[in-house]
Amino acid sequence: MKELTVSTSQHTEFVDITAAVQAAVGTLKIADGLVTVFVPHTTAGITINENADPDVLADLEAALERMVPRQGGYRHGEGNSAAHVKASLLGFSVQIPVQAGRLRLGAWQGIYFCEFDGPRRRQVWVC
Amino acid sequence: MKELTVSTSQHTEFVDITAAVQAAVGTLKIADGLVTVFVPHTTAGITINENADPDVLADLEAALERMVPRQGGYRHGEGNSAAHVKASLLGFSVQIPVQAGRLRLGAWQGIYFCEFDGPRRRQVWVC
Amino acid sequence: MKELTVSTSQHTEFVDITAAVQAAVGTLKIADGLVTVFVPHTTAGITINENADPDVLADLEAALERMVPRQGGYRHGEGNSAAHVKASLLGFSVQIPVQAGRLRLGAWQGIYFCEFDGPRRRQVWVC
Repeated sequence: MKELTVSTSQHTEFVDITAAVQAAVGTLKIADGLVTVFVPHTTAGITINENADPDVLADLEAALERMVPRQGGYRHGEGNSAAHVKASLLGFSVQIPVQAGRLRLGAWQGIYFCEFDGPRRRQVWVC
Repeated sequence: MKELTVSTSQHTEFVDITAAVQAAVGTLKIADGLVTVFVPHTTAGITINENADPDVLADLEAALERMVPRQGGYRHGEGNSAAHVKASLLGFSVQIPVQAGRLRLGAWQGIYFCEFDGPRRRQVWVC
Repeated sequence: MKELTVSTSQHTEFVDITAAVQAAVGTLKIADGLVTVFVPHTTAGITINENADPDVLADLEAALERMVPRQGGYRHGEGNSAAHVKASLLGFSVQIPVQAGRLRLGAWQGIYFCEFDGPRRRQVWVC
């Protein structure tokens, strides 16, 4: 397993970690098969989405905020319940095919760490 | 890895790919373990749900449309932001147990390719 | 594969199955790698979230209910369409790293079976 660190600078932020995951695949010498990228947090998740137009990620952030507003009369006292919900909606791991040591993603796909309660120093585990 | 093609005929469409995934499991000679089904797109996803009453899928489509309306004041210029959001909500891969060369799904489970920006010719990778 | 049984007692309920999954990892003698926890149902799902304050799970339940109300003018005749939708939103499997025979979760992470149409006797497959 290769542990990566992701430092986020905003409350909500989608960080493209595709290159870091590719580097970890090289370090782990995964030749063919699948790599799993796991987020060991409960207020951050992970997803795949378009790596070309950053407006796609802005729209994803806004759509999630409409579905799960930060201020929503929650019971949990820390004020970050929406972050917990958004993380569960996107999930905590992605699986990516690997061929000949390279991530095999679709043409427009990037891997995004999804911060919902930043800024923070976070971990991502590649295995 | 086995690459499948899925041709969709509607803007939003849930295509039962269970039989095609089972055939790929046979081609790949997966005997026991897990198979991963990966969608290499950003406006289509994949999920599991009931394979008996098609109204379940109609309700899933309608519920997603209420949560993430196609017309929603998005920034991304291509007009398909809702498709990107819906795909991230359902996700881009599923893992299914395999025993003795057969998909081991629950009694009512089918595997559905989820088109949110069709009609298009799409790919699904089984590995 | 190790099959677990989960008996739920409420309509909607998040059941912490972390200890049961850890026990299954021991039975299966998984030393290092990944374990997959699969739910073979269509009105129950699985997620990871905070294992400290139960209010987090209460907030998750309430947020899902706001997004996908139980009464919502659905077509499916069994009255459990919202359960089908919520299960697809959270998903039907999680992957967890395993090191030296132990689940490697984040400090606050627990694994939750997500009942949306209980009470029922359910299965969870660990592989």
